[in-house]
Parts: sequence; structure tokens; C-alpha cells
Amino acid sequence: MKVVVVGSMAYDSVETWAGKRERALGGSATYFSLASSLFAQTDVVAVVGEDFASTDLARLGDKGVGLGGVQQVAGETFKWGGRYSRYFETRETLFTELNVFSSFEPDIPSDMRDADVLFLANIHPRLQLNVLDQMTSPKFVALDTMNFWISGERKHLDAVISKVDLLLLNDEEAFALSDSGNMLQAAEAIMAMGPQAVVIKRGEHGAWLFTKDHTGLVPAVPLHEVIDPTGAGDTFAGGFIGYLARAGEFGLESLKQAMVAGTLAASYCVQDFSIDRLEDVSLQDLADRHGKLRGIVADLDAKFVN
Amino acid sequence: MKVVVVGSMAYDSVETWAGKRERALGGSATYFSLASSLFAQTDVVAVVGEDFASTDLARLGDKGVGLGGVQQVAGETFKWGGRYSRYFETRETLFTELNVFSSFEPDIPSDMRDADVLFLANIHPRLQLNVLDQMTSPKFVALDTMNFWISGERKHLDAVISKVDLLLLNDEEAFALSDSGNMLQAAEAIMAMGPQAVVIKRGEHGAWLFTKDHTGLVPAVPLHEVIDPTGAGDTFAGGFIGYLARAGEFGLESLKQAMVAGTLAASYCVQDFSIDRLEDVSLQDLADRHGKLRGIVADLDAKFVN
Repeated sequence: MKVVVVGSMAYDSVETWAGKRERALGGSATYFSLASSLFAQTDVVAVVGEDFASTDLARLGDKGVGLGGVQQVAGETFKWGGRYSRYFETRETLFTELNVFSSFEPDIPSDMRDADVLFLANIHPRLQLNVLDQMTSPKFVALDTMNFWISGERKHLDAVISKVDLLLLNDEEAFALSDSGNMLQAAEAIMAMGPQAVVIKRGEHGAWLFTKDHTGLVPAVPLHEVIDPTGAGDTFAGGFIGYLARAGEFGLESLKQAMVAGTLAASYCVQDFSIDRLEDVSLQDLADRHGKLRGIVADLDAKFVN
Repeated sequence: MKVVVVGSMAYDSVETWAGKRERALGGSATYFSLASSLFAQTDVVAVVGEDFASTDLARLGDKGVGLGGVQQVAGETFKWGGRYSRYFETRETLFTELNVFSSFEPDIPSDMRDADVLFLANIHPRLQLNVLDQMTSPKFVALDTMNFWISGERKHLDAVISKVDLLLLNDEEAFALSDSGNMLQAAEAIMAMGPQAVVIKRGEHGAWLFTKDHTGLVPAVPLHEVIDPTGAGDTFAGGFIGYLARAGEFGLESLKQAMVAGTLAASYCVQDFSIDRLEDVSLQDLADRHGKLRGIVADLDAKFVN
């Protein structure tokens, strides 16, 4: 199955203990599409400015990402700057310049409207609704969002949430959306809003999958060194959704396996700045790290009564 | 094998979203011994004041906890007061009255000195060293500590750490002790100080076991409601150490299974104030919840290459 992702392409200025990068390729659609295209044809719908380098588009194109939905318009590309504390306990946003992203009105190219799988990355929920209307009849729609929309655009957000199959968000967002700080309560409240499944991303603590009949964790791969966590959540989403699209069905077993794919993809993303490591990841890399991940939680055997 | 635990017995004043309790039975040795005695004979060495109720001692005695090492002396029992935020994101200490605990000089009764398994709960590292000297030849010694000793009594603490088999501490303590906010770096730094194994407790995110050859996570059991997390770490330690003592050996497989026992015991502890739920836990309860825990991380199957 084919995947369409609607989200941002950006230039990030990032500072971590490991160094500083200016104008590093970023954005939700960038990270997502690189991970997703490991598994399935993935087309990006996004907007960039005149300053966006053709060499950066080529980095995605070379990996098979479909760029027919990327509009280049007058103005500057979305820019974000952030600084992380030594061990990533906190992140400080230094600036957010929406630029051309502020007037982004996604127009899904006609040859992408019949995609089976749609990922609505974090954009205005009104636009997410609009994109949904443009699609013919997607078999699986997943959504990400952020606290800004949860607190400020609740009506549109609730409307789009009620129409999607899966919500994928981090723990802070899940708590804000459900008005509960308890993970199970949050997941159940979100499923009551419509989605049959919820994925709650908890950074280095892993990601949880919830359906009516299942509660499961995939731990994040512990690493000796994280270089830059920017994009890890979008990379997780890309690995997850791409895996599902390749599977071609969305049952519990596929969802559980997709969690593993997202986890492994994200573990490579954070090992360098921007997409520098992610763009070179292969399925063989994921397979290599898969055994290690399984070993972390192998069996949980114990004996309590005879 | 028999277990000896040296730690505190206390009266706690605790406030959570679920209510308020005054003079609730607490202390590291209390929680530890209740969990440990599910698996193995467990003797407590601690000090209490004149105000300590015989009915509270009886609550432990009724569960088989050995109380021959509990001295009752003139003065008041150790008292601690704390308040937790709605979802336990933060804990505020309202007061700490060490009382008789401030002049605690553990004297291990002669019939407990030959115990095979020793747990040194969080007390002054000088006293931990002293206790170690009193034991004949324990086969397995585990240690807990806290930030107060890590920052203020580093020399004594390093000395005792170099003599134990396992260090069991929470993530904040592990980071402080190793001067690293990276979990793998922290665990390796601590093992380099002497212990062959380290357990890092991460609250609702579960607990990690590290040995030279193994890195493993046991997730905490997700609960719809936590009533009072006080004592969860000590209960984990009790389930963990008690399980090992029953196994009678300390190889990797036993350590891994002990992690499961600690996790399950702690999951009951937090479901009521003080020891109110924990004191009624049976091995059958642990067995009942074990299947649920295993289901959370079942197999982590996925396919990346043919």
C-alpha cells in the first residue's frame, strides 16, 4: 500500500552537548518519509520556500521518497531553533519562524488522493480535516498533534480525531488531551473520542500501544550516546506507518510489529544530527538491532506458585 | 536462604489525591520485609521509639517477619511527612523528624549474623559498613542509598559500594552517583565501582537490570489508579531480594526473575496507602498479575528482511 504524509519540511538550528547545527534539514514530513519509505512508497505533501536547497530535496528523492506534493513558493522555509540540556531532560525553543508554513494550504495531487494510508503530521487541525476531505477512501488514517492545538483549537481537533483510526502522540500531549496524568486513563479517554488505537510515545522510556483488547510497551533501545533527539517521534511514526502499509492490513499483530519498526527506526535517528544517520538506515540495520531489543524484555519468566 | 534487612521503621504523614493519612506505618525496612517475607524468612534490624504501637509490630509479625532485631528505645519514632501532586509527578517533603533514627547504631543479633542474604536499605553509609563488618560471611549483599549520602558522604559510600554485590537505586540516584544522565553510562560507571549488578528503578517506567552481559527492562504494571507510591521502591527491593533468597543462588536467570517479583510486589504496594494493600498480598496475587505483565511486552516480533 502507498503512504501519503502531510506535514512540515524545515530548516532547524539545533544545539546539543555534541555540537551545534545551523540550517539542518528537518520537519515532521522529512523524518517521517525517510523512515516510512524503508517499507512502502511514501509521498510527501508539504511546502518549502525559495531558500530550500534542491540538494536537500534530492536527499529525500534519492531514498525513494515521492516529492510530487512538495510545493516551492515565494518566501522562506519554516525555521525552528532549539537547544537541549546535556542529557535531554529539557528542550528550549529559541525561535519559531513559520514563514511559508503559516499559509500552507495542502493540496493533495490527484494521483495521491487514492492512497490507502494517510499520516496527518502535526499541522493545524482545520488543515488536517481539509486533507481528509480530499482523499478518496483511505483504509487507514493516523494523526499526530501538539499541545498548541490541544489547548487552542479543540473543536477542529476533536472533529479530526473522531475521523481517524489511530492517534499517535507523546505522553504530555496525551495527558493534555485527556485531562488525565494517568496513562491508561488517557489512552481510554482518547479511544472514546473515536480512534480504535492510540500510541503514546514516551521518549527514552519507549512507546505504548493501546487498543480495546491490548496494552503493550516497546522499550526504546538504550543507547550510550544520544546526539540529537529532534525528529525521533516523527521517525517512529514513519517506521510504524510504513511497516503497516507494507503489511497491507491493520490488525493487532501488525500494529504490534509496527511498534517495533518505529522504535528501531527512531533509535537510529537520534544517533546523529538531523537526518544524517537516518538517511543511511537500511532494513538490515533494523534487523540487526531487533535482536538486541528483544533481549531487553525476553520472556519475563518467574515462578510464584507451584 | 534467610534475609536480613537493616533500615528504617517510621510513621508517615502522606497526602495524595486520594486522601490523607497520619501516622501511617512506613519505613524502608517495613515495606522491604513484607515483600521479602513472601519468599524467604526475613529478619528486620531497625529502631523505633516509645510511641511505636505494638499493634504495628504485630502487623509485620503476623506475616512472618522476624522482629528480634527491632530495638524499641526512649524517644519518638522516625517521622516523615510528604505530599504528592495529582499524578505523582512531584513529591514535596513536608517534614523529616529523624528522632530515634538519628542515633541508630545497628547491632545485628548474634543469630542473624550468619544470614546468607543482606539488604542494606538507605541509612548512613558508615552504618552500612559497620553492619557489613558484623555479618559472618553473607553470600549476597545488596545496597540502597539516596542523594543525601551521594553528595555528602561520598567516601564512606564508595567504600561500602565497593563491597556489595548489587546496587539498587532509582534513576536520579544513579545519575548523581555516576555523574551522568545517560542510563547505560550510569550503570557501567556503578559496576566499575565494584558491584557485579545494578538495578535502576524508574518508577512507572519500570526497572532495569544491568550485569556485565545483560541489559534488561521489566516494565512497571500500568494501573488505572495509584493511591500512594510511598514505599514502592523498598517493596520492589523486598520482592527482588526475597525471590533471590528463595532461589538460593544469584545467577543471571535468578536476577532476571527476581526483577519480575519486585515489579509485581511494588504494583500492589501503590494501590493503597502505607502497607494496607501490601500486607495482604499473596504469592497467588503475584502469579495472577504475572500473566498481564508478560502480555505487555510479549515477543516483540517483527520482520525486516527475508
